[in-house]
Amino acid sequence: MRTPLTTTPELRQQVLNRVYALDVAGLRSLLDDQHPADIADLLESLDEQQRVWIFSQLQLPVAAEVLDEARTDTLLDLVEGTPDERIADLLEEMPMDDAAEILSEIKPARADELIALMEPEEAAEVGQLLAYPPESAGRLMNADIVRLQSTWTVAHTLDVLREVDPEIELLAYLYVVDPAGKLEGVVPLRRLITARPERVMSDLTLPSVVTVQTGTDQEEVARVMAQYDFFAVPVTDEAGVLAGIVTHDDVIDVLADEFTEDVQRFGGSAPLENSYLSTPVGKMVRKRVGWLFLLFFTAQLTTTIMQLFADEINQVVALSFFVPLLIGTGGNAGSQMTATMIRAVAVGEVRFSDIWTVLSRELATGLLLGLAMGAAGFVFAQIGGYDPLLAITVALALLVLVVWANLMGVLLPIFADRLNVDPTVISGPVMSTLVDATGLLIYFTLAGIILGL
Amino acid sequence: MRTPLTTTPELRQQVLNRVYALDVAGLRSLLDDQHPADIADLLESLDEQQRVWIFSQLQLPVAAEVLDEARTDTLLDLVEGTPDERIADLLEEMPMDDAAEILSEIKPARADELIALMEPEEAAEVGQLLAYPPESAGRLMNADIVRLQSTWTVAHTLDVLREVDPEIELLAYLYVVDPAGKLEGVVPLRRLITARPERVMSDLTLPSVVTVQTGTDQEEVARVMAQYDFFAVPVTDEAGVLAGIVTHDDVIDVLADEFTEDVQRFGGSAPLENSYLSTPVGKMVRKRVGWLFLLFFTAQLTTTIMQLFADEINQVVALSFFVPLLIGTGGNAGSQMTATMIRAVAVGEVRFSDIWTVLSRELATGLLLGLAMGAAGFVFAQIGGYDPLLAITVALALLVLVVWANLMGVLLPIFADRLNVDPTVISGPVMSTLVDATGLLIYFTLAGIILGL
Repeated sequence: MRTPLTTTPELRQQVLNRVYALDVAGLRSLLDDQHPADIADLLESLDEQQRVWIFSQLQLPVAAEVLDEARTDTLLDLVEGTPDERIADLLEEMPMDDAAEILSEIKPARADELIALMEPEEAAEVGQLLAYPPESAGRLMNADIVRLQSTWTVAHTLDVLREVDPEIELLAYLYVVDPAGKLEGVVPLRRLITARPERVMSDLTLPSVVTVQTGTDQEEVARVMAQYDFFAVPVTDEAGVLAGIVTHDDVIDVLADEFTEDVQRFGGSAPLENSYLSTPVGKMVRKRVGWLFLLFFTAQLTTTIMQLFADEINQVVALSFFVPLLIGTGGNAGSQMTATMIRAVAVGEVRFSDIWTVLSRELATGLLLGLAMGAAGFVFAQIGGYDPLLAITVALALLVLVVWANLMGVLLPIFADRLNVDPTVISGPVMSTLVDATGLLIYFTLAGIILGL
Repeated sequence: MRTPLTTTPELRQQVLNRVYALDVAGLRSLLDDQHPADIADLLESLDEQQRVWIFSQLQLPVAAEVLDEARTDTLLDLVEGTPDERIADLLEEMPMDDAAEILSEIKPARADELIALMEPEEAAEVGQLLAYPPESAGRLMNADIVRLQSTWTVAHTLDVLREVDPEIELLAYLYVVDPAGKLEGVVPLRRLITARPERVMSDLTLPSVVTVQTGTDQEEVARVMAQYDFFAVPVTDEAGVLAGIVTHDDVIDVLADEFTEDVQRFGGSAPLENSYLSTPVGKMVRKRVGWLFLLFFTAQLTTTIMQLFADEINQVVALSFFVPLLIGTGGNAGSQMTATMIRAVAVGEVRFSDIWTVLSRELATGLLLGLAMGAAGFVFAQIGGYDPLLAITVALALLVLVVWANLMGVLLPIFADRLNVDPTVISGPVMSTLVDATGLLIYFTLAGIILGL
């Protein structure tokens, strides 16, 4: 028994010692005890040359699993530094859905060369998977599964399973198809092992099965599996023919990627397709510059508004001193609210029909937070020795702004979702920019009234 | 075969029609075809009275699964509106880890009453689970598992499995323990069904097993399962005695909750423990007011800085017009960067040792983005008819601010992680507030030099 994820730092040192000593035998015996996922993590922490050299020392089945587990940047280094023939052998060694995944991450020309080097059968299978649209169930699925016939007896089925390639995973369910390959239902492995040998599959089959189609988006697949607590979901084509299964390990990765994209979008940039370090600077700039420009043009409104109130600022220059504090606090309240609401909408906790409940809740929350901030602002302006009327203006502006920002933070994601726009486009930066412009209008209007400008 | 997640809107109408007609038989036959997870979703979309009434019409096993799948707010309604005896029966019907989960979400006094109504055996088991710390593997695990002995033959093991309570899940692996209950290894179900009847378990056992301990934090459990692509992970106590297993469906929920918390934190508030709608307004305010105050006090610095430069503003009042635009754009650039970096650090793509690589990349990215924003700012100020020197000041300030905000956005999450602080504390609001204060210093200093104030 070993405790996972704790060995890496010491292991890394021991591995490096053997690499520097060119002690191949020592290195191999050290890595033999490691899980391939841990070896992949180890390679991640080393430089390109070290990665490639250690990888070249691994035995084929281990190397295949390591390649399968490696993140994009390590993967690209390993594929780059390893001869084509060996990569082709490694790809043949792994489940074809994982091979397809790897081939889709490397340059298309190189991928074609590698496929040409693979055995015809595997090359055909991987080609088929790559023909499905990116991010679809067809891409994600494992097509190499056991298909049972409803007429088979338990004894015959067990004989078949004994002959099945050990590379093929057997999970909690087996799939029954008709002679045309159409999915008829599932047999729980548990039923199979506890049934008498002469019973036939049709007696053991559960007919009602949730399926996805080859073209179903991977996010939808992940949602289905989370909804029904599935370990695997069968994938069929339009005719109902069983094409493969998607297993939960594929879905965990999809969920993590989608979440990364959501956070990036919420930060105010277009999501990256690859890992941060493997995205070139030029691409990073392109991913970010669009939103920055859009927000910049919106933010120009703030300058126009300030200009409109130039007279007021000229009369009481201290008015301008509070501008960053006010719009900053409003933006923060809006950003808090919108983050909470984006997730509540995404997981379906809040629907459009809840809008009145949510509005009345957030009017209350906004008022309480606004009162707290307004009081703090009043005390701060008084201590700073400003005109009491200016202090009142600041306090009132804070109150109104927080309430207003809070309501925008709740309404915009709900309306975005209603219009079938991903609510994460209402990012923190979008909120702050909107609050900046409207907040200035509120502040200077209040100032005009209270200070009599 | 049915396509999932598409039936809900029409189903909802059909269900409501039967509810209004008090057509119990029709309602039952309609819901009989539905997956309990879908019934839970349906209840979610109805009001409290409807939820409780429909729930009362469900048969015990279905009702138990629906309760298990319901989100917090629906769950609380159902528990509130259902007699104690029936809730106790429902809890006995489900896996004890799920029963413990539900009991931990309702008021402790009511939970104790319900436990007292359960069968002594189940009550004891649920009590044991609740004794583990919240969010630990012990809380999450299913203690009701099949334990094999290494001396058993395949034939005997299959006999035992036939007798096992059908409620107990059998997954891809079975667990072998010594007479003291210590975990010795796992037997893949596949090996068992394909082995000859007279072979003993010790021949089929894989000894090297990754385990977690009962006290392991649930996030760590989720990380282990994602790392090794596990469907289930065994949980042991300090002595190595097998206490239960955590399955991937528990972990998917944990991951989704952690995502939600991360987004809320990144939005600048403390994460909620429950769903949005089931969190009272008072609690929402408490979750948010701390950060708002902290940021408010930091933001006061902006007022002080503006005051410092009161002379300059008095001479060229137009200087103040660009303040929201400048600090807003800087904040947006910083927020983009910090969101990308938080995820890159969280998933281990970027480590502290990558700091120089990352810095040089982000210096380049920041310069390119800064040049673009600076150019846009210059054109905008020129079109607005401002003094060319002021336009140059604005352009230069934008360039320097974007570079500066970008570097802060990359450094702060990396240092937070290095200091073992969750990098999501560097939220969008924290970034904007820091950029606001430092940005004003940069802007007015540049203005002083260029405009000769």
